[in-house]
Amino acid sequence: MRLRISTRCYTVTSKRKLTTGLQNRLSNVFIPPYIASRVDGGMVIPFFQAESRLGTRIASQTWVSASGTRNVIRKQLIVLTTSGIYHVLPLGLRVQEKIERIINITMASLCASKLSLSTLSSSKLWKQTGRWEKYGQELFRLTDRKSSEFCLCPTHEEEITNLIANEILSYRQLPLRLYQIGRKFRDEKRPRGGLLRGREFLMNDLYTFDASEAAAMQTYDAVQAAYYRLFKTIGVPFVVAEAESGNIGGDKSHEYHYLSSSIPEFGALLTIGGEDKVLVCERCNYAVNTERSSSPQCLQCGSQMHEKSAIEVGHTFHLGTRYSEALGAFVTAEDPSIRSAIQMGCHGIGVSRLVVAIADICRGSRGLCWPVSVAPWETVIVTAGQEEGAEQVWDLLKDYTDSVIDDRQKTLGWKLKDAEAVGYPVTVIVGHSKG
Amino acid sequence: MRLRISTRCYTVTSKRKLTTGLQNRLSNVFIPPYIASRVDGGMVIPFFQAESRLGTRIASQTWVSASGTRNVIRKQLIVLTTSGIYHVLPLGLRVQEKIERIINITMASLCASKLSLSTLSSSKLWKQTGRWEKYGQELFRLTDRKSSEFCLCPTHEEEITNLIANEILSYRQLPLRLYQIGRKFRDEKRPRGGLLRGREFLMNDLYTFDASEAAAMQTYDAVQAAYYRLFKTIGVPFVVAEAESGNIGGDKSHEYHYLSSSIPEFGALLTIGGEDKVLVCERCNYAVNTERSSSPQCLQCGSQMHEKSAIEVGHTFHLGTRYSEALGAFVTAEDPSIRSAIQMGCHGIGVSRLVVAIADICRGSRGLCWPVSVAPWETVIVTAGQEEGAEQVWDLLKDYTDSVIDDRQKTLGWKLKDAEAVGYPVTVIVGHSKG
Repeated sequence: MRLRISTRCYTVTSKRKLTTGLQNRLSNVFIPPYIASRVDGGMVIPFFQAESRLGTRIASQTWVSASGTRNVIRKQLIVLTTSGIYHVLPLGLRVQEKIERIINITMASLCASKLSLSTLSSSKLWKQTGRWEKYGQELFRLTDRKSSEFCLCPTHEEEITNLIANEILSYRQLPLRLYQIGRKFRDEKRPRGGLLRGREFLMNDLYTFDASEAAAMQTYDAVQAAYYRLFKTIGVPFVVAEAESGNIGGDKSHEYHYLSSSIPEFGALLTIGGEDKVLVCERCNYAVNTERSSSPQCLQCGSQMHEKSAIEVGHTFHLGTRYSEALGAFVTAEDPSIRSAIQMGCHGIGVSRLVVAIADICRGSRGLCWPVSVAPWETVIVTAGQEEGAEQVWDLLKDYTDSVIDDRQKTLGWKLKDAEAVGYPVTVIVGHSKG
Repeated sequence: MRLRISTRCYTVTSKRKLTTGLQNRLSNVFIPPYIASRVDGGMVIPFFQAESRLGTRIASQTWVSASGTRNVIRKQLIVLTTSGIYHVLPLGLRVQEKIERIINITMASLCASKLSLSTLSSSKLWKQTGRWEKYGQELFRLTDRKSSEFCLCPTHEEEITNLIANEILSYRQLPLRLYQIGRKFRDEKRPRGGLLRGREFLMNDLYTFDASEAAAMQTYDAVQAAYYRLFKTIGVPFVVAEAESGNIGGDKSHEYHYLSSSIPEFGALLTIGGEDKVLVCERCNYAVNTERSSSPQCLQCGSQMHEKSAIEVGHTFHLGTRYSEALGAFVTAEDPSIRSAIQMGCHGIGVSRLVVAIADICRGSRGLCWPVSVAPWETVIVTAGQEEGAEQVWDLLKDYTDSVIDDRQKTLGWKLKDAEAVGYPVTVIVGHSKG
């Protein structure tokens, strides 16, 4: 080992300055360049550098052409590689990791245990449940070097049920709640809306296992309450709608939707991204997916309901025994001669979809307005050269807020405009007091 | 929204007790059951419950048959689904997330910015670099519904270089360091050793971009120093060996190896998992992969070197301009008429491989001995019924150590044996003092 080792922080001075230290600094973060200098009718219109080839390419895609603001935002969060497939850039990844943290806390409140299931899944289990055929072209399929068939999991009921079938044998081991946050794959016919409907995306999936239908209903209610807290924590208005359970099977199902009416300008998004129609009762807040019921009368209070465009960001399903029976997940009851199929539930949150949906919903005329809960940083500390003061402010704030110093070699005006475009909840300007 | 909402923690009482609250509890963690009751010659021999079908299946796999202890360990950390493909279980995931945290801190010390690249990659870029052919059968290939060709990325030089080619246009934007922690795929001919050589695995990959060869060498040295600190932090003895750069290309390369000689019993592992042979000089610590040099004379001090079996856990490469030239990643110099290819480096750490390698290396006759740096929990608080005392101890310790309460319905003896098998660095026993 012929290395010169130093435990101290070091600074590499070069054309681009890299600075280590305790403080977060925007100069260290990779944010694709753009010039937000032309303002048209109160909207920031991005003017991509002529040489920025990717910028130009993205700007010409339909999915970002609806709004100038969206261009700036999307370009900082995600980058399209090919239809429906994206790289998540540092700013987008910070938002994603904040959402993951909220999910982890919520799952802990459900006593759910975190694991990580494989992406590649053998066709064997999918044939046992009948979904190898049923999924059709949406399933990415491949064969390995020995011609064994695999798919890239769009969801993990098969794998988790098989795991449980091998490990859980007695009612004494239930209830059990397992979750993961991982990539999923779906070969969408018409991918669009950025990660709103991508072909590769990040999901949180929770699977619940109970010994009886009654226990499963208790679990379902607990999951619904936890989801409600989760979406309240994020802070973007949402509705919970009764839903059809679609391809997954099962007989109790709710969707969590962001609505077009809740925020101005959201309508523009929904022309490209909104996929669902829900009927919402404005009197009692009852909501139902139009796939389940098209009656305009509220099932709960009888009032008139109104149809809204919506984007689904979460889903709870009671699955019953569909997968446990197909894959042999049975437990013995108190009377050991009785064995019954495990009652299952599966519950999903679209993590990468949330990143893009929140960005699209929470914006004003000058840029984004991140909710504090998921902002890439809660506070940006803007300097006009006085870096030392900024570090002191960062140190003062560090126990109270997640902050970043904008120490890039730009003017104060540029930085303030950028802070508005990115949409930090709080901007602190560090300067000398006059007189 | 017809939910009954409670912000308080709640307890679900059932056959299995779920308890929420601030404290971590083993009763909430999914750990596949085993009975470690038969002791043979000081080794814990797992006696799987007869009904545990997966247990039996795993026990019959070659990759876990070498040692009884390993059975217990592996079964708690990962579960095989099909050849070379695994689920990571909660205990294994906690270790993995601790390694990820160490990586994040190390990457911050390099001013590297974290992003997340797509798993699916279009064949187009791989054909431009010639690796679509060169990778052969190790590349998982698939086509989408429109018959477009994709691979599952085994590494991300193509995608990151393409991203950079579109965004980085001037020497003023360099140096730049980008990293991710994500799943990779390789259709290994002979997968084995658990995640030591899996077909789906977690990697940390860092990509560095510099404007000149000299700057790239500075970066390379900084990365080496950071890697050295990282492996020191983990705490398992390692060597740094000069290496061939293989399929990736480039002309400067070092490997980070765990050696068979460093720990007793490691030899058993290497018969199934060790893939590399390195020559190590015991006088000056210089090491070299036998693929690069087979001379037994130390290139640094002239002493005799000895061949050791080793498992590679990290790798640094200077790539030069191979990918930037193939994919058109050029920057303008200070003289804007001059454009030159970006100097690149790529640097990897096998995250899931580390989980299994550390588990296999750090064990004694009664189970694992996790280093504090990556233990699933640093401290286990064992009770013999006095749960309240355990909570007080947890609260007392919470600012100093990452601890978990073993509140499962088992005897003190069972819990102590289990604590030894899992290998927590510290065990705290809570009981009444006598007299």
